[in-house]
Amino acid sequence: MFTGLSAFPLTPMNEQGVNEHEFIRLVECLAEAEVDSIGVLGSTGNYAYLSSEERARVAKLSVENAGNVPVVVGIGALRTRDVLANAENAQQAGAGGVLLAPVSYQKLTDDEVFSLYETVCRSLSVPLCVYDNPGTTHFHFSDELHGRIAQLPQVASIKIPPVQNDLAAAKARVAGLRALLPSDVTIGISGDPAAATGLLAGCDAWYSVIGGLYPEIALALTRAAQAGDTEQAIARSAALEPLWALYQEYGGSLRVAATIAELTGNVSQPCLPQPLRTLQGEARKRVEAVIDMLSLS
Amino acid sequence: MFTGLSAFPLTPMNEQGVNEHEFIRLVECLAEAEVDSIGVLGSTGNYAYLSSEERARVAKLSVENAGNVPVVVGIGALRTRDVLANAENAQQAGAGGVLLAPVSYQKLTDDEVFSLYETVCRSLSVPLCVYDNPGTTHFHFSDELHGRIAQLPQVASIKIPPVQNDLAAAKARVAGLRALLPSDVTIGISGDPAAATGLLAGCDAWYSVIGGLYPEIALALTRAAQAGDTEQAIARSAALEPLWALYQEYGGSLRVAATIAELTGNVSQPCLPQPLRTLQGEARKRVEAVIDMLSLS
Repeated sequence: MFTGLSAFPLTPMNEQGVNEHEFIRLVECLAEAEVDSIGVLGSTGNYAYLSSEERARVAKLSVENAGNVPVVVGIGALRTRDVLANAENAQQAGAGGVLLAPVSYQKLTDDEVFSLYETVCRSLSVPLCVYDNPGTTHFHFSDELHGRIAQLPQVASIKIPPVQNDLAAAKARVAGLRALLPSDVTIGISGDPAAATGLLAGCDAWYSVIGGLYPEIALALTRAAQAGDTEQAIARSAALEPLWALYQEYGGSLRVAATIAELTGNVSQPCLPQPLRTLQGEARKRVEAVIDMLSLS
Repeated sequence: MFTGLSAFPLTPMNEQGVNEHEFIRLVECLAEAEVDSIGVLGSTGNYAYLSSEERARVAKLSVENAGNVPVVVGIGALRTRDVLANAENAQQAGAGGVLLAPVSYQKLTDDEVFSLYETVCRSLSVPLCVYDNPGTTHFHFSDELHGRIAQLPQVASIKIPPVQNDLAAAKARVAGLRALLPSDVTIGISGDPAAATGLLAGCDAWYSVIGGLYPEIALALTRAAQAGDTEQAIARSAALEPLWALYQEYGGSLRVAATIAELTGNVSQPCLPQPLRTLQGEARKRVEAVIDMLSLS
């Protein structure tokens, strides 16, 4: 489950609630494309902005509509108490695995983060992916801490932040981390622009934002890298450069992906929880141009 | 209400809930000491870790036990929807004012933060204090944005991060910000070690963590600064240097204040929500030594 392409759909929502119809359609598309797993309620799925009840409902809808594709559910929250409740709800919904980031308000210590994972793992009967995303959690994992946490028997994968664009440097990074992990714990790359390099450098999975909207595009890149076709994987990523430039310019992937989904009619506008907003004005026109250029729909 | 000493109590809690009895006792002590205002559910009060219902209850208990001292209630949350609910609950409880930080998971833009304050202010009938705390929110206000937000009629104060220890530099900082604000908007200093300098540099208020546990100590410093007694204010802050050193060493004021409260028996142990923990081992012994040295109880 924690190998190959893990596609992360948006959770379309407005101030009244989640648009369940649109969410189900996004999940169905991923199931039809036969991605390797579906990662709901990740950062792209705005897990942090939903109530426990809304998250339980989204988890349930995901599993019901994912066909045979395993669903990984994000369970992160500021409080261990709430993480445990989310974990229980995800398991009840039939999640194949869970994804946990050490979300913080007060900066966390290494010991606090270890104890969070230890406590949550004790309550789990499904495998867990450690979600290392310093851009949103503001927690910086040391490799030593990753190694300690990965010893917990429920830990099955680590979702790492983007690697350097240089393949040799990326290989060294992945090998260095892998040396500290049990052999059955996979490493997955996140940050779409780093996906090709990450996979070619030895990552086992791509935790993908664009895969949540365009699974075929992300699958083609993933399969090329898995087959060792370096040239094709790099070329497929290079073809998406205009998209990566938008991520770079507009503060990451979420607002860009959400704006694309609105512009292509895959979700209603607005689809993000206030105070977050999709791109407007000149930025939105640039996204529109990239949609045309790449023939996205 | 947004001048003088605003004392921020802890919200003692464990995994089962808030210890209401202990919380009430903390609020009563502040009311008896006649602080200028009580700031509940600030960062020190762990607002971000409580449910909306728990926060409504804490707001109610505060007002009921604060006597004639006005209560300011923290209403921050990741979602505008939840901030609006917290604002309504705080007003229903009888809060004299509210405190709002732009809490983030996804990094916020200036326009998103402005629209958050604009939307919330439209729903308010009590004044609002803008809570600028980049250490926890990871949002950095420009002075220009502070100026824009302060034009909203409900905005009555800005709680700023620590100023430099140098008095001339601090005066320039406070004057520079004040020049951009309507004349009735006050500026309050936070970060206890910077309080004396901040007040002497022209801040109207001290949003104080230590004032939540030892209001007399904080009041003496505040009154000295308000009377223009530079020497006394600086001396009173210098006397607390061992405490400021603990803040510096242990990642801020929260864990230190919570550890002091546990060690002095003002709250039960544990008093912080998991995964947060009070200081243990060697660090706890150092806190104990400072309690003895400063004759805290």
